[in-house]
Amino acid sequence: MTQPFPFSAIVGQDEMKRALILTAIDPRIGGVLVFGDRGTGKSTAVRALAALLPPIEAVENCVYNSSDVKTARGLWDAPKDAKLVSRPTPVIDLPLGATEDRVVGALDIERALTKGEKAFEPGLLARAHRGYLYIDEVNLLEDHLVDLLLDAAASGENVVEREGLSIRHPARFVLVGSGNPEEGELRPQLLDRFGLSVDVSSPADVATRVEVVKRRDAYENDTAAFLKRWRAADTKLRKAILAARDRLAEVATPDETLEDCAALCLALGSDGVRGELVLVRAARALAAHEGAETVTRAHVRTVAPSALRHRLRRDPLDEAGSGARVARAVEEVLG
Amino acid sequence: MTQPFPFSAIVGQDEMKRALILTAIDPRIGGVLVFGDRGTGKSTAVRALAALLPPIEAVENCVYNSSDVKTARGLWDAPKDAKLVSRPTPVIDLPLGATEDRVVGALDIERALTKGEKAFEPGLLARAHRGYLYIDEVNLLEDHLVDLLLDAAASGENVVEREGLSIRHPARFVLVGSGNPEEGELRPQLLDRFGLSVDVSSPADVATRVEVVKRRDAYENDTAAFLKRWRAADTKLRKAILAARDRLAEVATPDETLEDCAALCLALGSDGVRGELVLVRAARALAAHEGAETVTRAHVRTVAPSALRHRLRRDPLDEAGSGARVARAVEEVLG
Amino acid sequence: MTQPFPFSAIVGQDEMKRALILTAIDPRIGGVLVFGDRGTGKSTAVRALAALLPPIEAVENCVYNSSDVKTARGLWDAPKDAKLVSRPTPVIDLPLGATEDRVVGALDIERALTKGEKAFEPGLLARAHRGYLYIDEVNLLEDHLVDLLLDAAASGENVVEREGLSIRHPARFVLVGSGNPEEGELRPQLLDRFGLSVDVSSPADVATRVEVVKRRDAYENDTAAFLKRWRAADTKLRKAILAARDRLAEVATPDETLEDCAALCLALGSDGVRGELVLVRAARALAAHEGAETVTRAHVRTVAPSALRHRLRRDPLDEAGSGARVARAVEEVLG
Amino acid sequence: MTQPFPFSAIVGQDEMKRALILTAIDPRIGGVLVFGDRGTGKSTAVRALAALLPPIEAVENCVYNSSDVKTARGLWDAPKDAKLVSRPTPVIDLPLGATEDRVVGALDIERALTKGEKAFEPGLLARAHRGYLYIDEVNLLEDHLVDLLLDAAASGENVVEREGLSIRHPARFVLVGSGNPEEGELRPQLLDRFGLSVDVSSPADVATRVEVVKRRDAYENDTAAFLKRWRAADTKLRKAILAARDRLAEVATPDETLEDCAALCLALGSDGVRGELVLVRAARALAAHEGAETVTRAHVRTVAPSALRHRLRRDPLDEAGSGARVARAVEEVLG
Amino acid sequence: MTQPFPFSAIVGQDEMKRALILTAIDPRIGGVLVFGDRGTGKSTAVRALAALLPPIEAVENCVYNSSDVKTARGLWDAPKDAKLVSRPTPVIDLPLGATEDRVVGALDIERALTKGEKAFEPGLLARAHRGYLYIDEVNLLEDHLVDLLLDAAASGENVVEREGLSIRHPARFVLVGSGNPEEGELRPQLLDRFGLSVDVSSPADVATRVEVVKRRDAYENDTAAFLKRWRAADTKLRKAILAARDRLAEVATPDETLEDCAALCLALGSDGVRGELVLVRAARALAAHEGAETVTRAHVRTVAPSALRHRLRRDPLDEAGSGARVARAVEEVLG
Amino acid sequence: MTQPFPFSAIVGQDEMKRALILTAIDPRIGGVLVFGDRGTGKSTAVRALAALLPPIEAVENCVYNSSDVKTARGLWDAPKDAKLVSRPTPVIDLPLGATEDRVVGALDIERALTKGEKAFEPGLLARAHRGYLYIDEVNLLEDHLVDLLLDAAASGENVVEREGLSIRHPARFVLVGSGNPEEGELRPQLLDRFGLSVDVSSPADVATRVEVVKRRDAYENDTAAFLKRWRAADTKLRKAILAARDRLAEVATPDETLEDCAALCLALGSDGVRGELVLVRAARALAAHEGAETVTRAHVRTVAPSALRHRLRRDPLDEAGSGARVARAVEEVLG
Repeated sequence: MTQPFPFSAIVGQDEMKRALILTAIDPRIGGVLVFGDRGTGKSTAVRALAALLPPIEAVENCVYNSSDVKTARGLWDAPKDAKLVSRPTPVIDLPLGATEDRVVGALDIERALTKGEKAFEPGLLARAHRGYLYIDEVNLLEDHLVDLLLDAAASGENVVEREGLSIRHPARFVLVGSGNPEEGELRPQLLDRFGLSVDVSSPADVATRVEVVKRRDAYENDTAAFLKRWRAADTKLRKAILAARDRLAEVATPDETLEDCAALCLALGSDGVRGELVLVRAARALAAHEGAETVTRAHVRTVAPSALRHRLRRDPLDEAGSGARVARAVEEVLG
Repeated sequence: MTQPFPFSAIVGQDEMKRALILTAIDPRIGGVLVFGDRGTGKSTAVRALAALLPPIEAVENCVYNSSDVKTARGLWDAPKDAKLVSRPTPVIDLPLGATEDRVVGALDIERALTKGEKAFEPGLLARAHRGYLYIDEVNLLEDHLVDLLLDAAASGENVVEREGLSIRHPARFVLVGSGNPEEGELRPQLLDRFGLSVDVSSPADVATRVEVVKRRDAYENDTAAFLKRWRAADTKLRKAILAARDRLAEVATPDETLEDCAALCLALGSDGVRGELVLVRAARALAAHEGAETVTRAHVRTVAPSALRHRLRRDPLDEAGSGARVARAVEEVLG
Repeated sequence: MTQPFPFSAIVGQDEMKRALILTAIDPRIGGVLVFGDRGTGKSTAVRALAALLPPIEAVENCVYNSSDVKTARGLWDAPKDAKLVSRPTPVIDLPLGATEDRVVGALDIERALTKGEKAFEPGLLARAHRGYLYIDEVNLLEDHLVDLLLDAAASGENVVEREGLSIRHPARFVLVGSGNPEEGELRPQLLDRFGLSVDVSSPADVATRVEVVKRRDAYENDTAAFLKRWRAADTKLRKAILAARDRLAEVATPDETLEDCAALCLALGSDGVRGELVLVRAARALAAHEGAETVTRAHVRTVAPSALRHRLRRDPLDEAGSGARVARAVEEVLG
Repeated sequence: MTQPFPFSAIVGQDEMKRALILTAIDPRIGGVLVFGDRGTGKSTAVRALAALLPPIEAVENCVYNSSDVKTARGLWDAPKDAKLVSRPTPVIDLPLGATEDRVVGALDIERALTKGEKAFEPGLLARAHRGYLYIDEVNLLEDHLVDLLLDAAASGENVVEREGLSIRHPARFVLVGSGNPEEGELRPQLLDRFGLSVDVSSPADVATRVEVVKRRDAYENDTAAFLKRWRAADTKLRKAILAARDRLAEVATPDETLEDCAALCLALGSDGVRGELVLVRAARALAAHEGAETVTRAHVRTVAPSALRHRLRRDPLDEAGSGARVARAVEEVLG
Repeated sequence: MTQPFPFSAIVGQDEMKRALILTAIDPRIGGVLVFGDRGTGKSTAVRALAALLPPIEAVENCVYNSSDVKTARGLWDAPKDAKLVSRPTPVIDLPLGATEDRVVGALDIERALTKGEKAFEPGLLARAHRGYLYIDEVNLLEDHLVDLLLDAAASGENVVEREGLSIRHPARFVLVGSGNPEEGELRPQLLDRFGLSVDVSSPADVATRVEVVKRRDAYENDTAAFLKRWRAADTKLRKAILAARDRLAEVATPDETLEDCAALCLALGSDGVRGELVLVRAARALAAHEGAETVTRAHVRTVAPSALRHRLRRDPLDEAGSGARVARAVEEVLG
Repeated sequence: MTQPFPFSAIVGQDEMKRALILTAIDPRIGGVLVFGDRGTGKSTAVRALAALLPPIEAVENCVYNSSDVKTARGLWDAPKDAKLVSRPTPVIDLPLGATEDRVVGALDIERALTKGEKAFEPGLLARAHRGYLYIDEVNLLEDHLVDLLLDAAASGENVVEREGLSIRHPARFVLVGSGNPEEGELRPQLLDRFGLSVDVSSPADVATRVEVVKRRDAYENDTAAFLKRWRAADTKLRKAILAARDRLAEVATPDETLEDCAALCLALGSDGVRGELVLVRAARALAAHEGAETVTRAHVRTVAPSALRHRLRRDPLDEAGSGARVARAVEEVLG
């Protein structure tokens, strides 16, 4: 198995990296949608982040990534004295054309036929528990699957009630989807359920591009040496994330921040209050990451484009992109 | 399992809350259609209402939610001495892409193959008995499924006659569907079979939005404390609903009320008499809720938009929304 | 199980009620198509008529509704000493999305797999024998199913020759279909095979509507009392239908009647002679219902719209509805 | 089982009746396509003709209608001493929506599963052997099925080579298809493979229509009496057909007849020589029916419309119907 | 089983007959596409040619038409002492709607289920080995099937690797497809892979048509006598083909011929070099048939239309048919 | 089995041959897309190259082409003392209409049913390991399959997690796809993931075409003699490729080269950095092939069209083909 590219070695793409870090600090922010050009390292970044995070402790042989034996034994016939083992934070790829069965799990036909037992065959949601579920080109996925994934991500559990099965297992994960806006769009209903969105694009100057190619080339020619070179930077970032997680509950959220968020969303005409909730949480996670004790207007400003860009109604008279429209509203509302 | 948000803590959305309360008082009013923006708390409200209602007493282990052992034994091999246990009022989600089999139940293939028995595997209709069946984005569901759900909701039982099965089990539930009118519409035939409809939208002022976000944030940060804070309000509402149920049969419905309803429906050109029947029942439930002894013109006025809005023929020359058209007719007819 | 609404308590809708009564007197008239607004009580009327008719005597436990043990034993392993029991005249609903298997019956897979026997699992046609088969929104049904239903209705038996089965069982029933002409149309080939058609619409005056709602409300609030109130009227009508059945064979059909019918159909340019046959039979049934000894021009006049309306070719230059075109032709031809 | 309407009692429709009689005399003429209005008695005529013909002698219980025990034993495990029994000439209806399996036969799944034997479950082609296969609305059938039916009809046998089966059984039958030219058309490739085609239409005068209705009414009111009344006429026609079959081989076909046929087809620009072959055979069968010793130009004239009408290329500049175009060509070529 | 019509008795259609003869001499020329009117005897000609060729010697009971016991035993459990028997050159019809399984063969489900063995059920390609595979209306076949057939025809073997099977058996056959250019077209990619193509049409003079009908009539009225009459002509042709096969390897192909072929293809702008290869081989086979020792420009001229007509790009500015465009290029390039 | 045509005997088509050689030297360049006319020898070239390369050593009977017994035993129950055997470099054809099961492998149903074991049935990816996977007309393949193939090709392994299987086996292969740009296009997302692309066309002069036909004819008439004639040339090329593989790691890539590549991609506006990575690798492989110690601007120039042509955005205002646009940019940027 190949070793992922180091997160710290990714050149540029700051907004995408920030969004991934914030959801690593507070997964309740919700999933991340990454829009942009092909070949800009979207899946590389997700894999890199997961590799950066500390491994998880899980029951040996447990495909549900259970953190303790009792939970595991409620889901399968794990041995009473099963050990805990370290595993990398899981990153599960949802293949194009995946069926609902493969995602949520299904009746284990083979056991039903050969042993006459009604057993559950866990799906990709079980494997993604405590990690990331990555969907390349989420805009090509069928709506009911996206919906189902967002439901599981929001509730933190996977409920299967069919074929005589009645299963409920934990499935807490961050959903990351990439998409090319030129090839079909997600329905607004689904867009709204992602926490953050970011735009990525290819670097526009020779020096940056040369740096990207050089690092990639170096990584492939001698992976071990390259990883060693970036280990310190990655370790530092990991510690920062873990520290921010600890600090999160103590960060204060003043009423003025809530009013800023509400005023911003009203100005943008975004439906519902999901935008505000995400905006508040992302700003708070950013404050924690920066070591601040209170969420400030500056934090809101920084994360507003990621939190709101994908919730705007299309405005045919306003030719500016959605990112620009958010920026303009920030300017007007937050001064 | 997470505890639902308290019904009383929902900010605003009075028409939606009233519609849910009225159908809790008199389920014969029929299902509720909720149209509106995403993120406006539609599914939160349904879950909240069900959590507010008193738990039901049901035979232990009975997936049909049977209220007595005899009924249960007619449906499955329940033990003769099965106990009654308390369960929360059920709220069943109909997943996008659900098949007819999952909804009405089907032959239990596993038992057929392994034991050679023709057994019935109950579906979501069985689980929804005595509670709520919630369909997010009902406009995306196939017509024949919506039809089947409305049939069951109207008749209060689920009849399955196929694959050599001939099953009939109680399935009394209130159907609640949400929909976004911008994404496909229900056929008029189906619209007409819902009892009430409501429009919901995001709050339009900063203070309300801040309050929504604050309550949501408080709920998520310390669920137990938040629930405690709202317990008294929820208990008061529960008692009011139970009292109204008791009073319902005694509320008088004068002929003038019936004439008002008929005149209103004629003025709106609504087909058939379902509109009138629902209007009468909803007005009567409102009267019971308010402790009135007689249905008055005021009650009719209040519920008319919910009872009639979704039954109007489209009028391409009248640009007003259907809610406004109902209001105008109320004005003209009821003075 | 709920008790149907009394047929006599239906307010108005005379043409629909007459069509149902005539086919109850002479089922050879063929099926009835009911076009019209939603909520106008179409399915209520069919259920009411069936409840009005005397119960049938059928072999106990026989899903084919066999009238004698010998017939039953030719279809299943009925006991030699099986009793006859009383059953309500069957009214079978054809669910939207029903498959051919569910309609005509199919191989009983479970018995084939577990006992190695090739047994027939009877379908809805068997259950409808000696009663009514009701199809809501027949225009949404697939053509080949409508065709198959009309074949069975016309021949009075269901012939199944496939999957190694060679089954033939009686299936004499009146097919009643409802349809909304605004939502897709039946092919002329299929329309022509229905005996009668009627248009129904909502009452247009307040008094009638109030009466409809009052009766419906009374029926639901105290079903037993309501049924008792209408029992005498229903009994009278039942006796009239049974008397008309007895009289039918003796009603004379003079040549002038046949010539009237032919001239009328020629004037309307209706294809084939099914229109004439139905017209003659419906007029004769009406004469029997009225106690007349001879079919008269007045009888023809009365039933002509129901018998012919659905057989006209569309005439793009004639803006009148088909009912009006029949009426005009009656005026011109029969004076 | 109901007794078919007598062939002789059919009013008018001479071209259709002639086509059916000619194919009864010489089945090599090929199938018959009947175009025309609904309700004009197409299926009645086919059933009537089959009932008119003498019964066939077939091996008892043989679903292949085998004429001798040896053939039967080559197809199934018929007893060595199986008796021959009389059966009516078979008329098989091809139901709308029939699958290839039902038509040609298929692996008997039940026997394969329960006895581990690869047995053939014969299809409708086996049942139609030595009789008629009737397809109502042949234009709605899938092309590959029509093709398969025409192949079998032309070769007189049904060859099944699939699923490990290699079966070949006789299937000599006359294919009769009805169609409504307003509802989709057969591809010219398929049209050309039918032998004859006829147009039928409703009678256009009152007297004829009254006669049709009277006979139909009499038949239904007292079938036995009606059949008795027409028995002599049917018997006479049966004898005439049997006599013509015997005479057929001796009827001379002079070169002038062949040249007439060729010139006519050239004038009409019909592709291939199937038109000529059918024209010659139909004229010869007609000569035999009339007791003539030689085919004459008059015979060719009479059958030309039926033999050629469906083989014309569409000519957008010629507004005359295809029947009229054939008639005009007959006029010009045969003088 | 009926005896095919004699090849020599086919009236006219010289280009089609020549193409069939040339591929009988050198099957590496590839398949033949026959375009043209219905009823022009396309399938008759293929069957006739196969009947003309000498029977093949094949292992008894071998559905693969193996020429020796060793090959047969590699494919199935043929007895060690299996005899060789004579069989007619196979002509296999590919039915419309045939599946890939029926064409290439598939897992023998019945043996898998009953004996637990993974056995191969050979398909039509096995049966066509050493003979002809005839596809009526090849333009209606799915592309991937045509592709698969052309692959097998080109490689001379059928390779099946799926469902755990890994089978490879000889499948050398000439593919003959008929098509009606008015009903859908083959993709150029597929057209190019056929060796030759011919246009056939109905005879345009009375005398020829009378001769066609007379021969056909005579054949059907007394098949044995008709076959006897043409036996000598067929025998002579068979000998000529066998002699040409022997001579083929010795016919010289001068460089001038290759240059003529290349220049012709360049002038016609045909893609790739398949056209030239076929042109060279067809000219060489013609030379062998005529007993020539060297391929000449005259041979190239004769076969050029058949070899190239179907490889032209469509030229919307050139209204001449593709045959005429080839003829014009032959004129210009070969003088 | 037929012997492939010698690679060295292919006339012209230098860009295609170079692309194949470069990916043989460094498979990390990625797959090759070949666009162009039919009949230009695309599949011939792939087969020829594979035949040119040295055979691989693989565990006997191992369908995964494992290079050592340990790996093989991790995938199937290979004997402990299994031998290594020589096999030709595999070239696997992906058939049109191949399913995902056939490509990635699937549960071995037969073993599951008969032995109750959950075994993996390897697919085409396993067979292609260490060789080539050839897709004719890749533009006709479903997107999710192309995606899956590109994922496997990029990662060098095939991961199957479904149906209770959790399999991971090596699958390092070069993907070669041919396509006809006139028949549907690949999505840009997929195009970008191919390493190189080449355009091929038919030779445009008589001499070359004659040479092509002559060689092909010679090859088919006496394959052994033809192969012998070209053996030396093929051997020389094989040695050159093996030498270049050894040298590859030592070829220097100066910063100027990286800057050239970046500037070129920026000028062409290609998304992402895949273009640059491929450009660098292909130039380096070319340098190794030519024995150079350093990548030069000349190497970049040579491979730029193949590396970048398929990554351009469509520019409706620029009528030049994509090859010409790359050439122009090379001219402008690299001088």
